[in-house]
Amino acid sequence: MQKIFRIRTGSLGLLMLCVTSMLFLWTSCALAGDPNGAFTFTKSLEGLTTSGNFVWILMAAFLILFMQAGFMLLGGLVRSKNMLSYMTHCFMATTAGAFIFWLFGFALMFGGSHLAPGLVKGNSFIGYGGFLLLGETYDVKTILLFIFMAVVATFIGSIIAGAVAERIKFSAFLISCFLVYAFVYSFYGHWIWGEGWLAELELGVGVKDFAGSGVVHAIGGICAFMGAWALGPRIGKFNPDGSSNHIPGHNIAYVLIGTIILAFGWLAYDAGSTLAISELRSSIIAANTFLAGISGAIIVVLYTYIKNKKADIAEACNGALGGFVAVSASCAYVAPWAAVIIGLSGGLLMCATVWLVEQKFKVDDPLGAVSVHGANGLWGLLAVGIFADGSYAGVSGLITGSGGQFLAQLIAFGTAIVWAGVLGFGIFFGLKHTIGIRVSKTEELDGLDVVLHGTQCYPPDGKYIEDIDTVVRKHIRLGEFVQ
Amino acid sequence: MQKIFRIRTGSLGLLMLCVTSMLFLWTSCALAGDPNGAFTFTKSLEGLTTSGNFVWILMAAFLILFMQAGFMLLGGLVRSKNMLSYMTHCFMATTAGAFIFWLFGFALMFGGSHLAPGLVKGNSFIGYGGFLLLGETYDVKTILLFIFMAVVATFIGSIIAGAVAERIKFSAFLISCFLVYAFVYSFYGHWIWGEGWLAELELGVGVKDFAGSGVVHAIGGICAFMGAWALGPRIGKFNPDGSSNHIPGHNIAYVLIGTIILAFGWLAYDAGSTLAISELRSSIIAANTFLAGISGAIIVVLYTYIKNKKADIAEACNGALGGFVAVSASCAYVAPWAAVIIGLSGGLLMCATVWLVEQKFKVDDPLGAVSVHGANGLWGLLAVGIFADGSYAGVSGLITGSGGQFLAQLIAFGTAIVWAGVLGFGIFFGLKHTIGIRVSKTEELDGLDVVLHGTQCYPPDGKYIEDIDTVVRKHIRLGEFVQ
Amino acid sequence: MQKIFRIRTGSLGLLMLCVTSMLFLWTSCALAGDPNGAFTFTKSLEGLTTSGNFVWILMAAFLILFMQAGFMLLGGLVRSKNMLSYMTHCFMATTAGAFIFWLFGFALMFGGSHLAPGLVKGNSFIGYGGFLLLGETYDVKTILLFIFMAVVATFIGSIIAGAVAERIKFSAFLISCFLVYAFVYSFYGHWIWGEGWLAELELGVGVKDFAGSGVVHAIGGICAFMGAWALGPRIGKFNPDGSSNHIPGHNIAYVLIGTIILAFGWLAYDAGSTLAISELRSSIIAANTFLAGISGAIIVVLYTYIKNKKADIAEACNGALGGFVAVSASCAYVAPWAAVIIGLSGGLLMCATVWLVEQKFKVDDPLGAVSVHGANGLWGLLAVGIFADGSYAGVSGLITGSGGQFLAQLIAFGTAIVWAGVLGFGIFFGLKHTIGIRVSKTEELDGLDVVLHGTQCYPPDGKYIEDIDTVVRKHIRLGEFVQ
Repeated sequence: MQKIFRIRTGSLGLLMLCVTSMLFLWTSCALAGDPNGAFTFTKSLEGLTTSGNFVWILMAAFLILFMQAGFMLLGGLVRSKNMLSYMTHCFMATTAGAFIFWLFGFALMFGGSHLAPGLVKGNSFIGYGGFLLLGETYDVKTILLFIFMAVVATFIGSIIAGAVAERIKFSAFLISCFLVYAFVYSFYGHWIWGEGWLAELELGVGVKDFAGSGVVHAIGGICAFMGAWALGPRIGKFNPDGSSNHIPGHNIAYVLIGTIILAFGWLAYDAGSTLAISELRSSIIAANTFLAGISGAIIVVLYTYIKNKKADIAEACNGALGGFVAVSASCAYVAPWAAVIIGLSGGLLMCATVWLVEQKFKVDDPLGAVSVHGANGLWGLLAVGIFADGSYAGVSGLITGSGGQFLAQLIAFGTAIVWAGVLGFGIFFGLKHTIGIRVSKTEELDGLDVVLHGTQCYPPDGKYIEDIDTVVRKHIRLGEFVQ
Repeated sequence: MQKIFRIRTGSLGLLMLCVTSMLFLWTSCALAGDPNGAFTFTKSLEGLTTSGNFVWILMAAFLILFMQAGFMLLGGLVRSKNMLSYMTHCFMATTAGAFIFWLFGFALMFGGSHLAPGLVKGNSFIGYGGFLLLGETYDVKTILLFIFMAVVATFIGSIIAGAVAERIKFSAFLISCFLVYAFVYSFYGHWIWGEGWLAELELGVGVKDFAGSGVVHAIGGICAFMGAWALGPRIGKFNPDGSSNHIPGHNIAYVLIGTIILAFGWLAYDAGSTLAISELRSSIIAANTFLAGISGAIIVVLYTYIKNKKADIAEACNGALGGFVAVSASCAYVAPWAAVIIGLSGGLLMCATVWLVEQKFKVDDPLGAVSVHGANGLWGLLAVGIFADGSYAGVSGLITGSGGQFLAQLIAFGTAIVWAGVLGFGIFFGLKHTIGIRVSKTEELDGLDVVLHGTQCYPPDGKYIEDIDTVVRKHIRLGEFVQ
Repeated sequence: MQKIFRIRTGSLGLLMLCVTSMLFLWTSCALAGDPNGAFTFTKSLEGLTTSGNFVWILMAAFLILFMQAGFMLLGGLVRSKNMLSYMTHCFMATTAGAFIFWLFGFALMFGGSHLAPGLVKGNSFIGYGGFLLLGETYDVKTILLFIFMAVVATFIGSIIAGAVAERIKFSAFLISCFLVYAFVYSFYGHWIWGEGWLAELELGVGVKDFAGSGVVHAIGGICAFMGAWALGPRIGKFNPDGSSNHIPGHNIAYVLIGTIILAFGWLAYDAGSTLAISELRSSIIAANTFLAGISGAIIVVLYTYIKNKKADIAEACNGALGGFVAVSASCAYVAPWAAVIIGLSGGLLMCATVWLVEQKFKVDDPLGAVSVHGANGLWGLLAVGIFADGSYAGVSGLITGSGGQFLAQLIAFGTAIVWAGVLGFGIFFGLKHTIGIRVSKTEELDGLDVVLHGTQCYPPDGKYIEDIDTVVRKHIRLGEFVQ
């Protein structure tokens, strides 16, 4: 064993050496951008504006990264025996997801967008420039865009994690997410955010998705649905007659804290998506986001209270998240009153689709990710085309009497369903019938934490430790001191 | 049941349609402000300063919102059977509280203040302009003020939640908070922050409450006292002979994390209250806030260690919070050494008033909200009049040999006690003798979480689920596979 | 008892009065700096840049403070009976640690550095100006530096807390940390960050430690090693034959959340360490930090999966932290691909040194603080001298073909080991043989929380409370209502 280990370490070292050498070559033969910012920053009004933008975008990026703690804490809705497995999925989305984005995701999504130096290679369908941030993309402006987009990219995996929780194999999660990042997210993201064909539609001002209702949440939620469908329901979720059981989570306090963390980050995410401090609309964006989220929560509290005479607060958290998702695309383009309506309908839509997914489609989605992210993400795309009041960036929805923007959003809506639906279906059912995606029944009953990660999430003081205690206490009583 | 539900959903839809139509009308007939910031931002030094202010205020607002996670985690001091109920109260303060602020709180508090475009209607006693952010208040500057003040406004409910925990009805909490927001907080806030009569007193430079010792904490703490008094103590808190029992919380780790979260947000809240990046005093404000908080914690560690030979760390967390509250009003006007003294006295005051409230007044305040927020909030108002050293904004306290400011602060101190005391008394005792504010004894014993919210905060794996497990395992053993 | 208490309170009051008077005298006879920023801020491009710097540095400071919540949550790796003790150590590091820094740490570390007004007294070995922020250091710029450095200073105690957990006396922790702050950290910090002799070495551009791999993590980690060594292992950690046992923690979910919180703060810490918004390199710094952290995590997931066929996620969290530590010194000077390599090697180094410390040195380090902070901190110092690519601040490592910087870093590396090693050894073994540093065996078995802090971290509903419940329920059944 030790020998094998030594060999393995050796090979790893060798591998790393090779990779390093390759990178060296690549770096040295490539042109460089502006890696220290000396050309980008000048002592002038423009220079200072640029440095203000850096502060704004970086701070927003940090807060967006923190949202992963919120995603992880939503795991309070799974059973304690699978908590670690769920959190690990979010952790891998944060780490491996961002790593993939560095390797090629950023290049696919933003290549050819000309949004920052070095991003020149690409067309309206896909990008292919800026791999590993080498060459001309080793530039302060390009890497500013990278860090913001890298933390956003980590969300896709965490959204999917919510729907496939408590029964997916670790390897299957990793591979399916890899494929979603490579083929589903990068392409659709390129089309809207990377100056692709959807952004350049000649309807309204082209598709607008300010902070990811479509790119992030709809795509993530639709893939999540495919994953949950392919996996089948958890043991015990549905009875033989098709009726469903409520499988309680293990810590609702986590869910509430997670929701506040997500709210905190969401405001920064949406407002920060201006990517420029000169865009004072940021204050309205923050207020709209907040109003939509709280409206989503309030309507679900009311709804569950009317329905069951008990205010279901975990559901209300999902209502808040539904509101946030629904307003993400339109937060910059609508008035506060419209944000409230978008949030209220987002909360109700969440409740309705939870019922639809569970009772009609018989798909088991432990965290409601399909409803929160998928359904509301799609609704958010449309909301732009309805409520945009023309006061910002020339985006005018149906309420201004103009229908072009709505058509553009409708095309983005349809494209999201088809693209993520077909590819997501292919990925999850493809893996299901090849490597297999679901743990065995015994493993599921034992819990994924112990089986896949070697420990419970909340380990009890071990039997062994207690034995030690007993022995030592006896010696202490007898006046003998041992260590 | 299903039919009723369908009807209710129908009426909800109808209601929303009406509200929407009304809003449309209102919007279209009103004048507009500067909703996209094009007039507010100009490519100039002034324009850039303005956009810097936006960054500063928005980031502070986001961090202030996050403080609600800190408030929620202080729930570690209640019993686990009531944790969800306590957290729900904070959640409703965050959501419904901010919603109320959007509906009318902002208009009452800042109408007539002329602090931002559209806030013209109002007098020195109350404001009445800016409802629902419609008309001229649909402006980037006004909504910037709104988002900052909306997240601050959510605190009142969370402060009260700490004192009324473990025995209040959900409906009574909602109604009493609504009344506190509508009548107590908005008015007192208008008088100090909304350019009302206290701010315009001709003593010193008028009442100064930089970041809410008085407006937020004193008002919240005094109302909290009235709530706890009206409710009476939890079952088992006091013995027939009047002596009290310590009712342990359920998770002290939460309390520590909550305190760090609150500290994090508090620094941003106080420093951000400059509302302008040109005010470089922000660094001293942050340092003062930090020094006062840590001083409050240290003195309580010392005090409990001297008293019981054990460092009581939950108490020390309250000491830190006491220090933060005490320094909130004066953080901008005093020197660091004074902040340390304010913090030390804040910690001791917290300990003394906890004893007073529990042993003398026989009022049961599970989280010590009355001491942390009420007593220290009032002390904070006075501290401005004592320690302000004249180095900033012309505020000079007793240590500079000038007594005018102290008198102004004394008037604000007395006004807070009378206004919040009388109205808070009226609200809670009024509700007590009409709709009733306390759950039944059986409900209290069973725990509010299950009774009011339908689930435990930490649900155990259900009996039903275990049965399923047993059945499936048996089938697996027998070689039969069922789903 | 009550009388004693009254006398003690009286003396405390007297003491405070004396201190206050002394401070008054000191203040009034000293020269003042610019306490309200009127001279520092001017309506000009320079003034606006300065106020931008304030925003940037303050926001970073707030996020750094929040990292203490992350440190606390790593306590999920200790047993529940010692959780409160561990968290209290972090809490004292945050409060008392910063208080010490205000009293004299800041003066020792930055006196004579001329980095801000008033910091004039000191030499290249130690500073002695700026105690208690009095006199000329009562200045917005100086206090800006203070608040940033004060929150950073709190880390040392929390790093040590991880290695000495579950068996150290509370008093011994406080005294040893005090000595480490006074003699180890302040001096070494002065040498690198306070313009001391290491910063002024005429090799390369002098020692560079951008965000504390050496000053914070190496120093903290080496002292932590000495503490853990002096204390000896926890009961049950090693068997009589020298083999070791795994003592499981109690909450791995905390560890994951703590890691995300630390990641969140770390990005702000590293990027904020530019201390100037005109340094656009901040974006690359943030990206490098993120890439190193996620690389550290990914390699440990791979490593544990290859070794045990189970992805050990708590270990992966430590891998991420190892990556963050390793890149802290060099984050500003290297390219993204180098940050990935530094992170990957940081993760592997963490694994290797955990094995070394436990299996070879037989030292018990419950949280792996020695490996994460000590080993990777030292590695981080060297990494600057290897991977710096000359693109920023003239720092050029071995890969550019220049060896001077590497030599400078090597000297800092050696100095850290000798200075922190010798003094740390002296402090912990000195205290061991005088006041004693370890709790008794019985106390260790009972758990430090109850023994030292008077309560469990997760108190069960008390027996007493249950009795009350039973009695009241009986009365309710009988139709009698008592309170």
